Amino acid sequence: MAKIVFSNIIGVFVLENRRILDKKIFKNTESANIESAKNQKEYERQLLEKYPDAVKAKEMDMMAAVFPKIKEFRDDFYNKNMEIAVVSIRGSVTKDNLIIHAITNIEDLTRTINHLSKRLREWYGLYFPELGEKIGDNEKFAELVCKEDKERLIRELKIDSLGANLTKRDVTPMIELAKGICNLVEIKNKEAAYLNTIMSGYCPNLAVVAEVNVGAELIKHTGSIKKLAVMPSSTIQLLGAEKALFRHLKTKSKSPKQGLIINHPLLANAKENEKGKIARHLASAISIACRVDYFGGNTNTGYKLREKVEKFVKNLK
Amino acid sequence: MAKIVFSNIIGVFVLENRRILDKKIFKNTESANIESAKNQKEYERQLLEKYPDAVKAKEMDMMAAVFPKIKEFRDDFYNKNMEIAVVSIRGSVTKDNLIIHAITNIEDLTRTINHLSKRLREWYGLYFPELGEKIGDNEKFAELVCKEDKERLIRELKIDSLGANLTKRDVTPMIELAKGICNLVEIKNKEAAYLNTIMSGYCPNLAVVAEVNVGAELIKHTGSIKKLAVMPSSTIQLLGAEKALFRHLKTKSKSPKQGLIINHPLLANAKENEKGKIARHLASAISIACRVDYFGGNTNTGYKLREKVEKFVKNLK
Repeated sequence: MAKIVFSNIIGVFVLENRRILDKKIFKNTESANIESAKNQKEYERQLLEKYPDAVKAKEMDMMAAVFPKIKEFRDDFYNKNMEIAVVSIRGSVTKDNLIIHAITNIEDLTRTINHLSKRLREWYGLYFPELGEKIGDNEKFAELVCKEDKERLIRELKIDSLGANLTKRDVTPMIELAKGICNLVEIKNKEAAYLNTIMSGYCPNLAVVAEVNVGAELIKHTGSIKKLAVMPSSTIQLLGAEKALFRHLKTKSKSPKQGLIINHPLLANAKENEKGKIARHLASAISIACRVDYFGGNTNTGYKLREKVEKFVKNLK
Repeated sequence: MAKIVFSNIIGVFVLENRRILDKKIFKNTESANIESAKNQKEYERQLLEKYPDAVKAKEMDMMAAVFPKIKEFRDDFYNKNMEIAVVSIRGSVTKDNLIIHAITNIEDLTRTINHLSKRLREWYGLYFPELGEKIGDNEKFAELVCKEDKERLIRELKIDSLGANLTKRDVTPMIELAKGICNLVEIKNKEAAYLNTIMSGYCPNLAVVAEVNVGAELIKHTGSIKKLAVMPSSTIQLLGAEKALFRHLKTKSKSPKQGLIINHPLLANAKENEKGKIARHLASAISIACRVDYFGGNTNTGYKLREKVEKFVKNLK
């Protein structure tokens, strides 16, 4: 039987009759697969020179199946395989994952803040119902409650209060809740700043064209910027409006004009009959931005794209 | 026409032919209705002495309807009425309201903490998945994440990590979220302490027999301790299990054995076939405790009642 040269994750081997004649083991254990690729050719060349009658293995799979059964290398083989698995598990966390977690967390926090604020409004309403009526904004309301000074608020806001005269002991837990809400607002702002940073680094053009939040929502909806980059712009336009789209296809209801991008400031402030046009242009710009980001193009393309859409919106009016 | 003496919220008047002959106005404006009741009889006596031919009005309603039309007193009448309304609005906030808000808020916070913890586990899992597997308790998990030291945790908990090697920038927002959760836990504990204080003052016996949380939930469910005090103990036993009860009455499904009191430690740890008996005894004790609390009896009755139930549970085993 001829001598065979073959390589796997732990080194390059010369086999004769299923026994190992010679071997060259890869040194670096940490980044096994990367190192292997570099050394493999060199080792193979050396061994083929040493054994001129050897041939390179063709049926790699068969050899790979036989190899682990050789007792000498069983542990090595197992460990190396584990290492490769660990490296690829570690490497599987992408920026997409981080962006998705950050935007979901921001949404969670917003929902939590609103929910707790509703409770605070009702509870504090026993003590000072007029404040809740006067202050519509939840964050501002929690801030004012934190200040713990009903008398001063009454003077400042020039309102009289029909609220109950509660003792400090009864008001303190309300203020604690308000402080908690303020704390959550602060965290939300920090998370938003983080999302901004990571988006600007990872997909600067998308972040400019679609704005950070809408961009992150698009990534969350599709799973990654890669998937977003290969989508046609008409799909991007309707992402998040799947229910309305399929209802339109099944019945004869109106077709949706936009999905998640509805939250984009250019669309949110548009007239009803212009939304469709703007959405089409915006989705097209987003689509281009994603492709430039994903395939590593100019990081300034976003500004030009955005400007173009803004110009289009301006000319509509 | 005879002279008529009649009183309303601003004073006692002598009328003849729908015109005011004489009057005595209540002095205190702030606590109008309370003051009135005290002075009314005295003023009436004085005026009846002064006008021996006058009689006390019988048809108060008619007089009250005529009176506001007398221009002289219109403003007085309006203002006094407003004052009384304000006082009674202010007085309408009871301890029951405060207890209900406190317990609802504690429940809200618990739900929020669990929800945000789930997000934190998933997010931090990208970086250090083994910690989430090892630590089941949400509050403890958030605390450990706050410490910001993966290396030390790996050493201390003797676990290896397959998590991604994220930069500090990417880990910081997770830690921020964990801090937020810890902060909410702290607030929850403070609210619980407050609920404890207010319950011990307002319904000490209920707080002892039913424990603070179950007691507060019962009050929340019924609306006030007053309503709870007039309920039969069998109703208290099933409060919160209305759905199961009506299903039982309609169909032939099993009858529920306990409602909200299921969370009481004496019941939570009991055997399945003993729960019904214990629930009956516990509800009976709770019912008595509520009545003692509401009608202002001995504040130590709760201990005796609780002891009795505990003895019953002990004898079952």
